[in-house]
Amino acid sequence: MTLEDEIIGRLNSVREAARRLALAPTERKNAMLTKLAGAIKSSGAEIIAANRHDVEAAERAGNGKAFVERLTLNAQRVAAMARSVEEIATLPDPVGEIIEKWQRPNGLEIAKVRVPLGVIAIVYESRPNVTIDAAALTLKSGNGVVLRGGSEALKTNVCLARLVSDALRAAGLPPDAAFFVANPDREVIQVLKRQPALIDLIIPRGGQALKRALEGSAVPLLPHFDGICHTYVDRAADLAMAQEICFNAKCSRPSVCNAMENLLVHATIAREFLPAMAQRFITEGVELRGCERTCAIVPDARPATEADWDTEYLDLVLAIRIVDSLDEAIEFISRHGSHLADAIVTNDAQAAARFEREVDSATVYVNASTRFTDGFEFGFGAETGISTNRLHARGPMGLRELTTYKYVIHGHGQVRI
Amino acid sequence: MTLEDEIIGRLNSVREAARRLALAPTERKNAMLTKLAGAIKSSGAEIIAANRHDVEAAERAGNGKAFVERLTLNAQRVAAMARSVEEIATLPDPVGEIIEKWQRPNGLEIAKVRVPLGVIAIVYESRPNVTIDAAALTLKSGNGVVLRGGSEALKTNVCLARLVSDALRAAGLPPDAAFFVANPDREVIQVLKRQPALIDLIIPRGGQALKRALEGSAVPLLPHFDGICHTYVDRAADLAMAQEICFNAKCSRPSVCNAMENLLVHATIAREFLPAMAQRFITEGVELRGCERTCAIVPDARPATEADWDTEYLDLVLAIRIVDSLDEAIEFISRHGSHLADAIVTNDAQAAARFEREVDSATVYVNASTRFTDGFEFGFGAETGISTNRLHARGPMGLRELTTYKYVIHGHGQVRI
Repeated sequence: MTLEDEIIGRLNSVREAARRLALAPTERKNAMLTKLAGAIKSSGAEIIAANRHDVEAAERAGNGKAFVERLTLNAQRVAAMARSVEEIATLPDPVGEIIEKWQRPNGLEIAKVRVPLGVIAIVYESRPNVTIDAAALTLKSGNGVVLRGGSEALKTNVCLARLVSDALRAAGLPPDAAFFVANPDREVIQVLKRQPALIDLIIPRGGQALKRALEGSAVPLLPHFDGICHTYVDRAADLAMAQEICFNAKCSRPSVCNAMENLLVHATIAREFLPAMAQRFITEGVELRGCERTCAIVPDARPATEADWDTEYLDLVLAIRIVDSLDEAIEFISRHGSHLADAIVTNDAQAAARFEREVDSATVYVNASTRFTDGFEFGFGAETGISTNRLHARGPMGLRELTTYKYVIHGHGQVRI
Repeated sequence: MTLEDEIIGRLNSVREAARRLALAPTERKNAMLTKLAGAIKSSGAEIIAANRHDVEAAERAGNGKAFVERLTLNAQRVAAMARSVEEIATLPDPVGEIIEKWQRPNGLEIAKVRVPLGVIAIVYESRPNVTIDAAALTLKSGNGVVLRGGSEALKTNVCLARLVSDALRAAGLPPDAAFFVANPDREVIQVLKRQPALIDLIIPRGGQALKRALEGSAVPLLPHFDGICHTYVDRAADLAMAQEICFNAKCSRPSVCNAMENLLVHATIAREFLPAMAQRFITEGVELRGCERTCAIVPDARPATEADWDTEYLDLVLAIRIVDSLDEAIEFISRHGSHLADAIVTNDAQAAARFEREVDSATVYVNASTRFTDGFEFGFGAETGISTNRLHARGPMGLRELTTYKYVIHGHGQVRI
């Protein structure tokens, strides 16, 4: 049996199980999650032992510190996984929600009802907690799930995936609804992307290599690859507020997609704003790169190259540019941003209104940090990623974004004339 | 300059124009549509003359009667095109609609606001009215549009596309927002499907050849290819109502995707229901194919092959199967249907509830004809296709389904802790 045949066989079982899970009552899905949380807690030693194997192998293979750090589980992280599952159990079930309902003049009653998407494949990298989070979120929203984690976390993931199957079985739900692909062959991703009849959506969570591997996918993708986020400090900004927002956007967690990469400053207030702002960044260890005018005001900034404006640093590096107008700021963001999260700091209501209308990004902020682009911060109670897509779901994704809808139409014999 | 370079150059202009159109006020978009409707009316003779060339060429090329019929425009059809544009002008503008709005405990105010998708390509076949309809719908919803019609309608479409550009210009909107690809080279579709940075969505309107041509598209597709629709006459059906619904579903317009292809009948009422139903179908010229039990009751039916249950006839042909239970009907629909439109006829509320929950189709009917699966019949005021997709839009698509959303977040200096 080829790898492809083997995977297709399993995917057929997932599809069948997903049909049953789609009809499962909320209580049963929640019972499954509660069992899963309990199993994670009671299997802590076993999970950490499996993880120890992965971590040692990663260290032997010479992986960097940050990589090993992401891979490592300890008692605290295991407890956090269990807590996350418990929280997902408390969230409202999106399935069955009546989104809209109306009556037609001919008496037909049309209801738009939320239903699961079907089968969702999550392709991710080294963080093993994604195995649990992704399974909990997709199963709670009534979907079958195909999990494909990084090979470095394989032993940990196999251990966690078994807990998921056990919890499904214990709650009387089909264990095949979750399929962890334990084969580390890179070809697996190629097989998955060729199965539009068996997988409804692939959510990739990873970097450029994953993006390339998924090119030409016949299965729709919901990518969230790039985050080149801007903050524009307008001439009418409260400069103290601007400093707090910019500092937070850059420094609170520089490695994530909603961190600021480019800072735009209106020329009128640049001399007043930039020196103190730059000092604060430099104290925090941020490397500054600036346009010519910025470098004249901030001697510690080194000249930015053209490539800098299009770079997602994901690190303590910031590109700063002085602009002469709101128009120039909007134009710059349109050209260099990744349409994920961009902010204006201003007390000018008209400037704010133009910015929020004309900047075409998933999340547009007035007087707040771009770091709020996150399912939890939005109040979704969970996050299955942040979409930079324009179709289906855009921005932070919660449970609802893992569903579609159908129309249920009640008549009393109507026919079309 | 290669074909690809030429098209990419034009697509860049569409992208730029779409950015401006996305911000255009409703009144201006409506003024454009009113001008377009007027131009269609006053250019009737010119349109029909251009169409005459296409029709004659199609006849010389030996195309069938139905094909030529779809291609042909006359004064009445030109008037209908103008009327359709006028109607689209009266529809509410989806752009700017606040879908949801809420406040977070930290005081952030989050609004989910409807915005255009961006640039939409419509790839269609010989009906020239699609040029006008698709342009009007995509432009009204603030999107740039790339129109790629069938080569047989080229002269007609070029004439219509010029009216669209003129109307955009006359209303002070960027004429580049609509790009009709006049080059009949089949390679055009291959070029379009490789431009995910310039086209946000391709809506294909056509048959299997188009489906194959678009395989491997890097641009997301919203297909509506197949319609294998079922009607299930339950044992608790009102048989007179069932006969009207089945007759309407099969015969009112057999060539469309929401027409019934498979009829399922509960064994208990088959002997009472089928003979009269079959007689009515036969009188209308419907060819009947049946399972063994059906053929025993309806001698005029010829035995159905396995392939019949999976065939979209789009014609006066119907496959009939007797089933022993609601479960068998649901299972059959799941296996053979295309998840577009399926109906149950029953007075048993429990059977209806199970059917509407368990049949996973875009539109599920209780006691009504599947022929209602249509944007106008749903009250959307327009239709840009019927999606068999699960992502983004499912079922009949109106203006709203051509939009996405962004989140606009207002703060007063909030930073993420």
